[in-house]
Amino acid sequence: MSSTNIGFSPDKGADAAPSVARRAADSAPSRAHERAAARKLAQFMGQPRITVRLWDGFAVPPVAGESLGTITLRTRATLMRLLRYGDIAFGDEYAAGHVEIDGDLVTVLTEAYHAREHNTPMTRLASRLYRRKPQTNTLAGSREHIHHHYNISNDFYRLWLDSEMQYTCAYFSDPTMTLEAAQRAKMDHVCRKLQLKPGDRVAEAGCGWGGLARHMALNYGAQVTSWNISVEQIRFACNRAKSEGYDDRVRYVEDDYRNISGEFDVFVSIGMLEHVGRQNYTALGQVVNQCLGQQGRALIHTIGRNHSQLMNAWIEKRIFPGAYPPTLREMTDIVEPFGFSVLDIENLRLHYARTLEEWLQRFDAASDSVGAQLGKEFERTWRLYLAGSQAAFLAGKLQLFQMLFARERDNTIPWSRSHLYGN
Amino acid sequence: MSSTNIGFSPDKGADAAPSVARRAADSAPSRAHERAAARKLAQFMGQPRITVRLWDGFAVPPVAGESLGTITLRTRATLMRLLRYGDIAFGDEYAAGHVEIDGDLVTVLTEAYHAREHNTPMTRLASRLYRRKPQTNTLAGSREHIHHHYNISNDFYRLWLDSEMQYTCAYFSDPTMTLEAAQRAKMDHVCRKLQLKPGDRVAEAGCGWGGLARHMALNYGAQVTSWNISVEQIRFACNRAKSEGYDDRVRYVEDDYRNISGEFDVFVSIGMLEHVGRQNYTALGQVVNQCLGQQGRALIHTIGRNHSQLMNAWIEKRIFPGAYPPTLREMTDIVEPFGFSVLDIENLRLHYARTLEEWLQRFDAASDSVGAQLGKEFERTWRLYLAGSQAAFLAGKLQLFQMLFARERDNTIPWSRSHLYGN
Repeated sequence: MSSTNIGFSPDKGADAAPSVARRAADSAPSRAHERAAARKLAQFMGQPRITVRLWDGFAVPPVAGESLGTITLRTRATLMRLLRYGDIAFGDEYAAGHVEIDGDLVTVLTEAYHAREHNTPMTRLASRLYRRKPQTNTLAGSREHIHHHYNISNDFYRLWLDSEMQYTCAYFSDPTMTLEAAQRAKMDHVCRKLQLKPGDRVAEAGCGWGGLARHMALNYGAQVTSWNISVEQIRFACNRAKSEGYDDRVRYVEDDYRNISGEFDVFVSIGMLEHVGRQNYTALGQVVNQCLGQQGRALIHTIGRNHSQLMNAWIEKRIFPGAYPPTLREMTDIVEPFGFSVLDIENLRLHYARTLEEWLQRFDAASDSVGAQLGKEFERTWRLYLAGSQAAFLAGKLQLFQMLFARERDNTIPWSRSHLYGN
Repeated sequence: MSSTNIGFSPDKGADAAPSVARRAADSAPSRAHERAAARKLAQFMGQPRITVRLWDGFAVPPVAGESLGTITLRTRATLMRLLRYGDIAFGDEYAAGHVEIDGDLVTVLTEAYHAREHNTPMTRLASRLYRRKPQTNTLAGSREHIHHHYNISNDFYRLWLDSEMQYTCAYFSDPTMTLEAAQRAKMDHVCRKLQLKPGDRVAEAGCGWGGLARHMALNYGAQVTSWNISVEQIRFACNRAKSEGYDDRVRYVEDDYRNISGEFDVFVSIGMLEHVGRQNYTALGQVVNQCLGQQGRALIHTIGRNHSQLMNAWIEKRIFPGAYPPTLREMTDIVEPFGFSVLDIENLRLHYARTLEEWLQRFDAASDSVGAQLGKEFERTWRLYLAGSQAAFLAGKLQLFQMLFARERDNTIPWSRSHLYGN
């Protein structure tokens, strides 16, 4: 594995979590002010139905309702960090093994999201800390951010993604289908929305490991050009296209979406908008406007929000630097300046919760291997990220929007959406 | 008929169009500066493929392309008014018979919309004139606006609407179906989106002549309360419910949507948002927030725009005072402050063009009767309004959005949209 530490490399600054090895649990009994601080923490959390327990066993039960699980703080420093740094400390302390969660991880985190209202001291603090760092989705900044996340070795992702390496929300057209089938169904759902037909020239912005481009070429006869700035992913995609012999129909380009040029019948972007940064939505719209033909279709698939709100600070710091999930209002910056007509918006929130459930199960099954190869902190970081994301979708704090749009004057748009459902 | 002149009652001010009777066509030949002005007018219109002809036969052909029709200005005063007052003058002069259109009316108007770009002197002028008048969608203002449009006698609307008196976009699930079938299909499409089931308590804001409420009660077993401030419509709806014996399941209330109270499983509003005024979207969202249960569904169906732009000034003045078609961005004012989760947005633009085509055909078939009873100017006003609206939908200048939303935490939302398409 090429870059084992990229996914989790704690700062050496004041708020860095000490490693599991360096600190043991506190053994001294908790004092009165620490017990008061634990109660304060539960209050900051919005009084969830979760027990907060200190290192010595002192427990703050929920003020109302049956406890759904227990969060144990193993050291007094952890307690102070949580009060001081909110979400960032929670993630880091969990990764370091100083926070333990008993009970079902997703259930506890979902409850924590439910209890948390918008404007708590906890979320205000997280936002304030986060805002110190300006968003830097410049050409170079984006490259660094994407390197951070996606250039962890392909082998790591292969442990828990489906066989097509789809690292975005699947579509379970039948709720009992496998993840593999649901990822294929997602690609078909997208292709049907785009009314993809043989010979269509497709521009794809952010192609991951190239699975959708391959699917469009092999199953719909499209000519696809896919842009991506992740070196590892592009290499994987190119090698696969060559070895499977479809590199005449798919071209993978290691470059930024802002450098897309040419004329296309279809523009598609699955799970890239989260990385674009909200100051760049109109620039993305301009790219679509420049490359899409007069009867072209465009689809953008992205994690989103109901309210304008920054990314969870810990996720942004440890997992997805530069990421931001937009609201529908913000997404209109892509279409409105160019007179695009929005044809269809679908929210697949529950499908992402289900996708994450599948990923988490596979991740848990491979956790010994992940821990052995990439370290225990890395493994705990990724488990918290996957479980926390599932919880955020279940609690309605994250949405998944697919937005389909076309030129204003185009009357060749589909008459209804029945073709998406086999009619 | 109770109020024959409400639909068209020209101001007596400077920009009022003289009646057909009062002025004949000019007979004097056009002069050089008038011919230059005609060329200027074509330029202001964005050089459409339409011939502009003056009263003496002098014609300005299109600068490029074959002419799709001819607009004849019958008097020199008409020419000056068009240059000075833009859309408002165009509508009034057409109604007065001083503007004649040869060729297919919808084709000519669609071409006029296509040629018109956003920021022409023509549209700037129309907006400026319009902006002098503040929007007044207060409780009393709305009542006056709605009276203006909807209290024209029911007999008039019966001449050209379907048998259920649906005065909103139909849904042609099969493009060959009749208007009657398409209006029923629209009601069913809405009921399926709302997952309406027996016993559901429905709040309807703006119920027209009560057709949807009746449909929901008789075909889905719902308990419906419908609000409307049009006296004529409420009277019609109440009488029908009583005579057909479903007044135990539907209650029609003559009151403003802002006075809706109670708790409901479903909130629905078809074709009212256009009359709400953009300053009131959050007030509407607050109404939904107060009356919708924790697992409730809400649907808003409205004419919309791709760009923020005022209503066509003439339509606003003569047909729909206080009306404003929102963009998707503006519509988020309804949902975002209350944490509603948008599940589905569908754009039915082409279905409204088709609906208007049907209405116009029926209107034309009844035009002698309309003219005889309500006057020639009224008849011409309404033909231009119906044809111009069809043109605006065909040219992509108007959209039709259906927005479905629910509470953020509600995980009982439908898994997919396949139930809308018979699966």
